[in-house]
Amino acid sequence: MKLSDIGEFGFIESIRKDCLTTLDEVIKGIGDDCAVFRSSGDRVLLLTTDMLVEDIHFVRDTITPHQLGGKAIAVNLSDIAAMGGRPLVALISVAIPAEREIEELQELYRGMKDICGRYRVDIVGGDTVASPDKLVINVSVVGDANEGQVLYRSGARPGDKIYLTGTVGDSSAGLRILRGKISAPGPLRDHFIKAHNEPQPLIETGGIIAQSRLATAMIDLSDGLISDLGHICEESGVGAFLFRDRIPLSSELEKVAGYAGFNPLELALSGGEDYALLATVPEKNAKKFEQVCKENGSWPLFLIGDIQEEGGIRMMTADGSVEKLRPKGFDHFSQP
Amino acid sequence: MKLSDIGEFGFIESIRKDCLTTLDEVIKGIGDDCAVFRSSGDRVLLLTTDMLVEDIHFVRDTITPHQLGGKAIAVNLSDIAAMGGRPLVALISVAIPAEREIEELQELYRGMKDICGRYRVDIVGGDTVASPDKLVINVSVVGDANEGQVLYRSGARPGDKIYLTGTVGDSSAGLRILRGKISAPGPLRDHFIKAHNEPQPLIETGGIIAQSRLATAMIDLSDGLISDLGHICEESGVGAFLFRDRIPLSSELEKVAGYAGFNPLELALSGGEDYALLATVPEKNAKKFEQVCKENGSWPLFLIGDIQEEGGIRMMTADGSVEKLRPKGFDHFSQP
Repeated sequence: MKLSDIGEFGFIESIRKDCLTTLDEVIKGIGDDCAVFRSSGDRVLLLTTDMLVEDIHFVRDTITPHQLGGKAIAVNLSDIAAMGGRPLVALISVAIPAEREIEELQELYRGMKDICGRYRVDIVGGDTVASPDKLVINVSVVGDANEGQVLYRSGARPGDKIYLTGTVGDSSAGLRILRGKISAPGPLRDHFIKAHNEPQPLIETGGIIAQSRLATAMIDLSDGLISDLGHICEESGVGAFLFRDRIPLSSELEKVAGYAGFNPLELALSGGEDYALLATVPEKNAKKFEQVCKENGSWPLFLIGDIQEEGGIRMMTADGSVEKLRPKGFDHFSQP
Repeated sequence: MKLSDIGEFGFIESIRKDCLTTLDEVIKGIGDDCAVFRSSGDRVLLLTTDMLVEDIHFVRDTITPHQLGGKAIAVNLSDIAAMGGRPLVALISVAIPAEREIEELQELYRGMKDICGRYRVDIVGGDTVASPDKLVINVSVVGDANEGQVLYRSGARPGDKIYLTGTVGDSSAGLRILRGKISAPGPLRDHFIKAHNEPQPLIETGGIIAQSRLATAMIDLSDGLISDLGHICEESGVGAFLFRDRIPLSSELEKVAGYAGFNPLELALSGGEDYALLATVPEKNAKKFEQVCKENGSWPLFLIGDIQEEGGIRMMTADGSVEKLRPKGFDHFSQP
């Protein structure tokens, strides 16, 4: 059987067994945005890792080396943000084709150092190796958090409100523009390409939500809204109901969808790489939650639906009918 | 300028600047076997990462997937051993060509899980992504240690004795056999291939040496004896003097060198991937050190030379003359 037959998530499921064997200190292993490991007192360590491969995750002529370095770090910091933690140190492994220019590589590392400086993360180690042809970047980040405040994917309960911290779909539109699948006039084009190439990890927002102790679950949107909400539903044993007209779209996305004649909602639901945070909040906490976020500058927030007991994800459309949604997020190994 | 012009170590030197910016908790960043990070009380965390790339670090038809998985973990555990620490958890990223057979990948993970089980390491997370053509494996390991017992590369002082915990050169002979550069009869062939494909991380030995508090510096032999001793000398600001007839060679290596007509010492000095530990010990501690290692089963030990004030590495040959040694260890980017 080939890997492409069972897909990325099927394969992960098949290897997930027997990974934890011995340690009492491990609170959460595979299956969330970060692993969680008891350190001392009520502090826990958060561990996460992400690999970016040339011609799979990025194409060299559509992202600058500085942006690429920044993005490789940002996607890991976003995982720390999704647990409500603070990033501390990073390990960076890079496999490099020997004929690459030093200046390109120094720009790559400059991009990593700039974002690490901005979020007060120290680069403490790594591995620098040769590659036959493609550039491969692996970043591992260690962060920490207060044990009682960590937000897992598994905490959502029926009746919880579903909040998004930002609009969705812009990154995916950027990718389509870079691939020449849609076109947009200059300033709009720049907006979307920036959304795709320079994602911002919402460390501060994640911290505000965790410290509020008002939310029950959180995840960052990397695979796509439906796919990531699906992870929350699966780990929590619940379903979700979304309101179509509440899904937050940027004015830029609505504009370009108008020009180019596509449905912006499709990108918003399945696009991926937005790195907004999705949090679930019990109804009784919702008012207070909105107030805390507003007071701390994490605003606007978007209330997009409810967690329900019945499994699966459904959406109420404009005409009042209900549509069942399936994840169409990115699976590395599935055939298109 | 191309990467191949300045080589791996030149490039690492050029990116090492500005990697540490903010955190008091970071005791050691880039430049040792592991990064060291203060956790709580007198415990420190050890962080290390290694990347293995197909057709650079391994060739598919000369190592089984199970061995490859084991080796990817072992090289990281060896870094933890070289600081005197205990490994705790691992993060595993794998970039996989989509047409690979599931069974091959499951064997790869089985190899990782087996060695992790043996050393009580939990696999707590990772990333599974597609690769256009080559298999790439990145492992990050977090361990811990008693702060006062951690052994850095920088602690060697003139007069210290240099000890090796095992023979050197067998792994390199295995690689040459696998590449068809030398040949050996069946059982010998198996011995060397196993030495190359199934390195054993010396966690217990490293722990015994660290707990003895009798050594001043330690490193694991991954690049080659001269190259790794060179790292100790550079970080400690010292030089070294070796006795040619004290470099420990296995009887198998002497035998195959006889058959195949090569100088076994060359492989022993520059071969790499032996994963023996090299420790430096003040002369006044040497007797006690040997005794402690013997009593705890870390035996034999090989006393191969002295640390000296004068920089560089020299070796006394059989006829009493002194030869200057230069590292010929593996540099990923240098031209041959």
